[in-house]
Amino acid sequence: MSEERKISMAVIRRLPRYYRYLGELIDNDISRISSRELSERMKVTASQIRQDLNNFGGFGQQGYGYNVEYLHAEIGKILGLDKTHKMIIVGAGNLGQALANYQSFEKRGFKLIGIFDVNPRLIGMTIRGIEVYDIDVMEKFVKEQEVDIAMLTMPKENVRETANNLAEWGIKGLWNFSPVDLYLPKHVQVENVHLSHGLMTLAYKIKDQSLTENEED
Amino acid sequence: MSEERKISMAVIRRLPRYYRYLGELIDNDISRISSRELSERMKVTASQIRQDLNNFGGFGQQGYGYNVEYLHAEIGKILGLDKTHKMIIVGAGNLGQALANYQSFEKRGFKLIGIFDVNPRLIGMTIRGIEVYDIDVMEKFVKEQEVDIAMLTMPKENVRETANNLAEWGIKGLWNFSPVDLYLPKHVQVENVHLSHGLMTLAYKIKDQSLTENEED
Repeated sequence: MSEERKISMAVIRRLPRYYRYLGELIDNDISRISSRELSERMKVTASQIRQDLNNFGGFGQQGYGYNVEYLHAEIGKILGLDKTHKMIIVGAGNLGQALANYQSFEKRGFKLIGIFDVNPRLIGMTIRGIEVYDIDVMEKFVKEQEVDIAMLTMPKENVRETANNLAEWGIKGLWNFSPVDLYLPKHVQVENVHLSHGLMTLAYKIKDQSLTENEED
Repeated sequence: MSEERKISMAVIRRLPRYYRYLGELIDNDISRISSRELSERMKVTASQIRQDLNNFGGFGQQGYGYNVEYLHAEIGKILGLDKTHKMIIVGAGNLGQALANYQSFEKRGFKLIGIFDVNPRLIGMTIRGIEVYDIDVMEKFVKEQEVDIAMLTMPKENVRETANNLAEWGIKGLWNFSPVDLYLPKHVQVENVHLSHGLMTLAYKIKDQSLTENEED
């Protein structure tokens, strides 16, 4: 039986941001912080911070604040960042290459071990020392290396078939960048990223802002 | 005075997904759809769909369903996609190049008109016919072209200064990919994208899933 209570996904989705801010505090040699100070930095109310962190038993002490390093490590454990995740990228185009170059993933235990593509011009090249392999050897690789996560940065047309194959080969998580929502068997977790959604939301905010300005005229 | 009621950001953030699904229906020559059918496709409850779309006066008719093209156009208008947004990219590295190649942005009225970098090896190259300029000419460009949106795909170190400059030069929105949260004057809207957050959330889901499996043993 797990000791952790079930936490809402809304809280979970806020944890990476805490984790990132706490990591920055550590980099700046700040060893403790009050919820008020953290609130000012993160532009979140102090009560929201206390509520969120109380989900995990609360790490703060009255009049002392939070122990930054401890809190950072605990949130890391909750997110599963205390273990190493073996990762591959499927699709070595621009986005795949960009993601292959993100060194911050490595720092958080996400270890990129292979990149796959169908394009003969890309196969054999290396990015940060990681090779681009022919997609034909992906099944063998995923099974032998027990890959945990695949980032899907391939064309939309083949993404469903690839995702189903990866699920069958034992992958645990898919980070999907193609503009298609994937739904898979329950043993495979999926994060669908839709970059264009952010851009559309930004367009709304811009429009809304101009509406407000007009209203104020 | 605006005719539109104030809509919660939670609803707004769901609209791009409706917009995308409705766009796919149009591509497949489907001209009307019931909330039940849309619900099955989008894996959202039909009542959520009705509630969300009721925010805009409700476009559905009892027993007829939604007029796909009309609904798509209306949501587009709400998001501000019926107008053209002039866009630049600041940072022509891997991610900047990847985003420059997203043709779906163009389809939604986001028109990339320039890319900027400090790297002499990148300056002068073109991506889909769009030139990479020296960042030194960015001020003149942004003011003369009345650029609406800048995508920030540059190193973290300079992003705050660049963002402040762009705000001063009249930019309306920033789409920020650097791992720093930007806060700007109210007339500049910001969408901060933190790719690593999605990966951390995925790690949590994987861990949570294994916990559940263990509990079932």
